[in-house]
Amino acid sequence: MIEYRPLRVALLGAGSVGAQVADQLLTHRDELAARIGASIELAGVAVRSLDAKRDTDIPRELLTTDAESLILGADIVVEVMGGLEPARTLILQALTSGADVITANKALLATHGPELFEAAGQVGAQLYYEAAVGGAIPIIRPLRDSLAGDRVQRILGIVNGTTNFILDRMDAHGESMEEALATATALGYAEADPTADVGGYDAAQKAAILASLAFHTLVPADAVYREGITEVTLEQVVAARKAGYVVKLLAICEQLVDPATGQRGVSARVHPALIPLSHPLAAVHGANNAVFVEAEAAGSLMFYGAGAGGIQTASAVLGDVVSAARRHVVGGPGVAESTHADLPVLPISAVTTRYQIALQVADEPGVLAVIAALFQSHGVSVETVQQAVSVVDPAVDPARAGQALGAATLVIGTHEASEADLAATVAALSTSSVVHSVTSVLRVEGL
Amino acid sequence: MIEYRPLRVALLGAGSVGAQVADQLLTHRDELAARIGASIELAGVAVRSLDAKRDTDIPRELLTTDAESLILGADIVVEVMGGLEPARTLILQALTSGADVITANKALLATHGPELFEAAGQVGAQLYYEAAVGGAIPIIRPLRDSLAGDRVQRILGIVNGTTNFILDRMDAHGESMEEALATATALGYAEADPTADVGGYDAAQKAAILASLAFHTLVPADAVYREGITEVTLEQVVAARKAGYVVKLLAICEQLVDPATGQRGVSARVHPALIPLSHPLAAVHGANNAVFVEAEAAGSLMFYGAGAGGIQTASAVLGDVVSAARRHVVGGPGVAESTHADLPVLPISAVTTRYQIALQVADEPGVLAVIAALFQSHGVSVETVQQAVSVVDPAVDPARAGQALGAATLVIGTHEASEADLAATVAALSTSSVVHSVTSVLRVEGL
Repeated sequence: MIEYRPLRVALLGAGSVGAQVADQLLTHRDELAARIGASIELAGVAVRSLDAKRDTDIPRELLTTDAESLILGADIVVEVMGGLEPARTLILQALTSGADVITANKALLATHGPELFEAAGQVGAQLYYEAAVGGAIPIIRPLRDSLAGDRVQRILGIVNGTTNFILDRMDAHGESMEEALATATALGYAEADPTADVGGYDAAQKAAILASLAFHTLVPADAVYREGITEVTLEQVVAARKAGYVVKLLAICEQLVDPATGQRGVSARVHPALIPLSHPLAAVHGANNAVFVEAEAAGSLMFYGAGAGGIQTASAVLGDVVSAARRHVVGGPGVAESTHADLPVLPISAVTTRYQIALQVADEPGVLAVIAALFQSHGVSVETVQQAVSVVDPAVDPARAGQALGAATLVIGTHEASEADLAATVAALSTSSVVHSVTSVLRVEGL
Repeated sequence: MIEYRPLRVALLGAGSVGAQVADQLLTHRDELAARIGASIELAGVAVRSLDAKRDTDIPRELLTTDAESLILGADIVVEVMGGLEPARTLILQALTSGADVITANKALLATHGPELFEAAGQVGAQLYYEAAVGGAIPIIRPLRDSLAGDRVQRILGIVNGTTNFILDRMDAHGESMEEALATATALGYAEADPTADVGGYDAAQKAAILASLAFHTLVPADAVYREGITEVTLEQVVAARKAGYVVKLLAICEQLVDPATGQRGVSARVHPALIPLSHPLAAVHGANNAVFVEAEAAGSLMFYGAGAGGIQTASAVLGDVVSAARRHVVGGPGVAESTHADLPVLPISAVTTRYQIALQVADEPGVLAVIAALFQSHGVSVETVQQAVSVVDPAVDPARAGQALGAATLVIGTHEASEADLAATVAALSTSSVVHSVTSVLRVEGL
């Protein structure tokens, strides 16, 4: 089923990614044709307004506001407009017409993925989405194809560049959360409203996509447990480094058994966590992304690179365009997304992990024994305790500098404990008469 | 073209990889069927001797010494026997019969790749080889598919676990080359005859495969420039770390223009090189592998993991089995390997890179000026000079400890220079009256 007419590519959206995709399709047309074994043609670019100012050389005659007509004649539809609608409706139209669809729209996939994959499966079309997670980093194809004969056990991902940039500034430059966010905004790494990034919503969408793919199970974005980085303090970051850790916002996907029910299932969660400095993820700096995969046979793998940016994301989109075009040349129906495992998505209470807890306590004999007994009575096993007596800060009161304050800081590292036991422990600590305050509770991953 | 009978997989070889592949195919048969959308069946395992002792539970009735008959009835043939023959002949038979072939045989691909891909293309069969480079690390599929719409500029790869283990022992434990090799042998990281690894032959085969794929050009293994690690000394490794570098055996593939001829082409080479400690490749320890890819649009990417091992390699093979099986289910001919770019493979003399050169020189006034003039007269620009006066080693002569020896060590870092100019400079240094000896010449990469 060799096709001799050029394959027609319809592009929906001409923002930072769309403009790059169009430029590359036009500039590298001959080279792409040689790689595919057939020519491809940019049939048109659907935009909201023909007259909007754009940073691209797309010929004006390719622009159209009529996305539906553009889709009708296309073999391959590239959706880089973002947002849920009209992206969802247009992709469904494209798939129903038999076109292969490429999307970078993680929000749409995390929200309406099942509906879209179902529509693709009905007509034997294929939905590609390498650009939806990790920008240019190939992660979807390795998970879907390279590890298709293996069993993924766990994924630890730094999948949001903005939050990694902020945490890295705090760690490397000693900036506060507010200062680091301001730096990120000034340098264009954070948007005017940074909520989607710093609140962990973007990472949660990516966690849903990765968990669904890795565990052959439907994991909707709203089933992903989510904590952002807004509560992370410079003190936590500094204390972490002293203790041999770095704070990262992690997307964690793993198979586990709920200790309460014995039920096997999938956990997908996003939260700040301590990572040992020796872990490969600890060396992921700036706005870079990395996905660390633990598989039964393959062992530990890591995929690293730029997680965002128009031209980087365009690289992933173009890779999908070539895959889709090759599939058109060779014919045959697409491969449906596999959800055969159909595991339940477990709540955060099913997770067991290590914790590091910092407390301000009274500097009195016997306090440590009280605290240790409290952990033990809640079923949480203490692994390490570090104690530092608090003294008067010379900047606050030079005359009394260094004198004991009657208080001490305890940093307690636990063995693996359940979220429920840990929460009960923290609640009991907060009301204990020897505890002044619980200053930090962080999960520890990657050990 | 849905097939209802199970797809038949023929396995050639039951060594450490083959045994794992067989075990996984048998153990995870139902799960693989669910992922593929069709069942697969291990039709048989071709071995040299039915009675050889094996560390596997392959049922005896699956073993056969008649590889040719086994291939005849197979949809998918997995070659993990290694060596050039009979692997080449059997793969050609399998491809000609229309079976898809999966191989982990880098030596065969680097030597007879073009013939095998040609045979596959003739009948529309597909040749998969994810396991041939980087063990379980997905690198072939990302290069072939994910980056198919981008332009790879350079690859820096740590693709041999044995040599990385040895260099890492020297760096982290201060072992000499001989001690580190002995450790590697004792721990099973080096074979009894380590020539293929420490001589860089294994890495050169992988460089040939990566360069061919990345640059859509035929790069035979014997066109790869090759230096092993046997000449690397502990002194070089220690000096490198002091200067902010680590010594790695790198497989380097890049597009470049020969400065002598103006000809655009491909360079593929394997040699020890200094890498800045801040480079992601510097953090690749032990027997791990990593491939660092620089692409025009995607920017810098890195793929990291275990580069060898039976079960890890089996993971990559199984991923290819699933891909091949899905292709059988959906039908359609395979995608031929693209060599459309057809660039010339340039000699090492076309490469320009930075160098670090260590010299023992006379500790006299004016020496530095003589040396600097010598570099300049050969067209090599000096970027950094570090000088250390040599003194009497207290262990050798306690009475004269610390006294000047009349000699000094110079470490000279150059700007980018051509191999030819550098070679001429080193030759001139060796015969200069103020130079006692040239103690180290290393290329610097990753800056």
